Amino acid sequence: MKIAAGSVTFPQGFLAQGVCAEIKRKNKMYLAIIYSPQPARAAAVYTTNKVRAACIDINRFHLEDGVAQAVVVNSGNANACTGEQGLADSIAMAELTGQCLQIRPQDVIVASTGVIGVYMPMDRIEDGITRAASALSRDGGHNAALALMTTDLVQKEAAVETEIGGKVVRIGGIAKGSGMIHPNMATMLAFITTDAAISSHCLKQMLRDSTDSSYNMISVDGDTSTNDMVVIMANGEAQNPLIDEVGSADYQLFKEALDLVNITLAKKIARDGEGATRLIEVQVLHAPSEDAARKIARTITTSNLTKAAVFGEDANWGRIFAAAGRAGVDFDPHRVDIYLGQEKMAVDGMGLLFDEERARQELKKATVVIKVDLKQGQAGAVAWGCDLSYDYIRINADYRT
Amino acid sequence: MKIAAGSVTFPQGFLAQGVCAEIKRKNKMYLAIIYSPQPARAAAVYTTNKVRAACIDINRFHLEDGVAQAVVVNSGNANACTGEQGLADSIAMAELTGQCLQIRPQDVIVASTGVIGVYMPMDRIEDGITRAASALSRDGGHNAALALMTTDLVQKEAAVETEIGGKVVRIGGIAKGSGMIHPNMATMLAFITTDAAISSHCLKQMLRDSTDSSYNMISVDGDTSTNDMVVIMANGEAQNPLIDEVGSADYQLFKEALDLVNITLAKKIARDGEGATRLIEVQVLHAPSEDAARKIARTITTSNLTKAAVFGEDANWGRIFAAAGRAGVDFDPHRVDIYLGQEKMAVDGMGLLFDEERARQELKKATVVIKVDLKQGQAGAVAWGCDLSYDYIRINADYRT
Repeated sequence: MKIAAGSVTFPQGFLAQGVCAEIKRKNKMYLAIIYSPQPARAAAVYTTNKVRAACIDINRFHLEDGVAQAVVVNSGNANACTGEQGLADSIAMAELTGQCLQIRPQDVIVASTGVIGVYMPMDRIEDGITRAASALSRDGGHNAALALMTTDLVQKEAAVETEIGGKVVRIGGIAKGSGMIHPNMATMLAFITTDAAISSHCLKQMLRDSTDSSYNMISVDGDTSTNDMVVIMANGEAQNPLIDEVGSADYQLFKEALDLVNITLAKKIARDGEGATRLIEVQVLHAPSEDAARKIARTITTSNLTKAAVFGEDANWGRIFAAAGRAGVDFDPHRVDIYLGQEKMAVDGMGLLFDEERARQELKKATVVIKVDLKQGQAGAVAWGCDLSYDYIRINADYRT
Repeated sequence: MKIAAGSVTFPQGFLAQGVCAEIKRKNKMYLAIIYSPQPARAAAVYTTNKVRAACIDINRFHLEDGVAQAVVVNSGNANACTGEQGLADSIAMAELTGQCLQIRPQDVIVASTGVIGVYMPMDRIEDGITRAASALSRDGGHNAALALMTTDLVQKEAAVETEIGGKVVRIGGIAKGSGMIHPNMATMLAFITTDAAISSHCLKQMLRDSTDSSYNMISVDGDTSTNDMVVIMANGEAQNPLIDEVGSADYQLFKEALDLVNITLAKKIARDGEGATRLIEVQVLHAPSEDAARKIARTITTSNLTKAAVFGEDANWGRIFAAAGRAGVDFDPHRVDIYLGQEKMAVDGMGLLFDEERARQELKKATVVIKVDLKQGQAGAVAWGCDLSYDYIRINADYRT
């Protein structure tokens, strides 16, 4: 397995493009299309928010047959809470994309991110679709990643190559996170492509599991979006022996590569969280169950007090410990050790006289590692978040107007 | 029922005092004692955090018989994560207070708030206890409220008078919240006194229920403390007919008064949240169940995106709606109306063309009211929170050092 430069056009047989659908300067919109001329097996996971954009429901319907050929995604407008008109607009996006690419509309996945409760400017969307579709290319993945960016500070791309059954198999992905001012909230979108040959049920299972240990383990501010979605398309062009048994050696090999792509993108999203100055990685070790480990790790990454302390380079392990304590998990606090990077801060639930300067050095790092060793089991989990800075407030105090 | 000026010394037969136990200027500590010469029925609710201060366990033990005569509380050090030494120090606080007041140590409730994982400076604590105990007075309630303040911006007191069985019954309370720089986290403490005659089991039940609709419905940042506690002492000096049946007319009458005291204190805590510039009141109406209403109301008060939007006076109802959607409650988003004060922002889950200026006026108020009408049931709930400002970051980015 090796990490490569590239994104959604790294695997064989995928084209992509991103364009600016800007008409008025004050309302920038971007549009991207990812396209596989070969029908691809596809799977997706969606936001669990009760308030969902129309595109989520449409994709569920379109993916019932497990096949897709294109993703069309716009920023600047989430097309959420827009009722019947919103539904019609999302369908129109799939139809126009299908028309341009000469494929069935039900093989098009639709994604949107941006302001909530405002109707889509369909003239601009249509213009964007037409232009993106006519400019699709084998090296357009980077442009698609840029189109997702809006005001994210860095583009989020990942590509990995592995070998399965003697064939080179590639996976590429692009994502957008929460470094955005225009969209209404921290919409998380990730689009993954692969030329692997893999059955629908394996793809679904694998995407769900891989999402659980990547995107579902990041948090910028605990808020989930109406439009979150992760989509994977596998077009089989690598011609590897079909992966069709969950848990088989090839399945595991491919999952390892997919996990790497997803975790890479997830960490890029967390690091580029609104106003973030540092990535926080929380490792929970020796927990009684994986569920317990996950809950504790995630609760720490969502603790405002912990996040603000990291921003201020304040080695406040008490906040970390207290966040663990409210995770809704049964554990014995008198056995817990806490580390900040290499520095041991607490042992058996009690503070140590630690070296303030070394602790501060750990907090100055671009990635701050917090380790919580429960010493009461064999399970573990890792979660990622970011610090809470003045810029988070600045960005979110007046985004809409 | 009438609201009065006063606090824990408003009810008959309670004395109190607060003193500064400052020795070095850089480590301010305050200490307060509340005392009833008559043994009082007492009840308490505690933090649900797995990581608990020693005093919590001691109080559980001391209140097994449902009787107490005094509360001793210090700020500046939480005495949490301090192991055997911490336990011994909390016991010593109860013992010295008992000695000074000539009562049994097990009739003393101990509370602490402040930095975690550091041993208590017992010389200063002892000095504070001795001085506070010797200065107890019938009008010392205000000083006790001030002693709880540390760097809260306003003291939190409430007093209510009602009539039960022809007798005047009084309730008073003081609380501390999260406007503090020294303590490690947003420790919430509330001490309630009353001269009502009420049985232990009624007092316990009522305190639990009243806490659920007051302190348990506020949020400053979603973090809970190792030391949170609400204590009530009832000394019976009002000589009303003993309230000893849950749900009886007198029980309800007294509960109404207790709720008013607790909700008043709770709102004062939320309004004085770290860095807060506004109180946010979230009303959820016509929900399928009270539990659903509570979850939705609380999720909105803890949404960083919503809190930052209120700080920025940005009428971003989409964030409110999306927070409701992730509350873990099953509801139909297509029937939901959302109001900002008097302004209707969304109907049936869709945005309205609202008056931006009027919406901004609602957001400029000292109390911002958000109303979410689910239109799918008969239950409701109210929760309180505060906005998220630059000052929250400033206060929490470098509190410890």
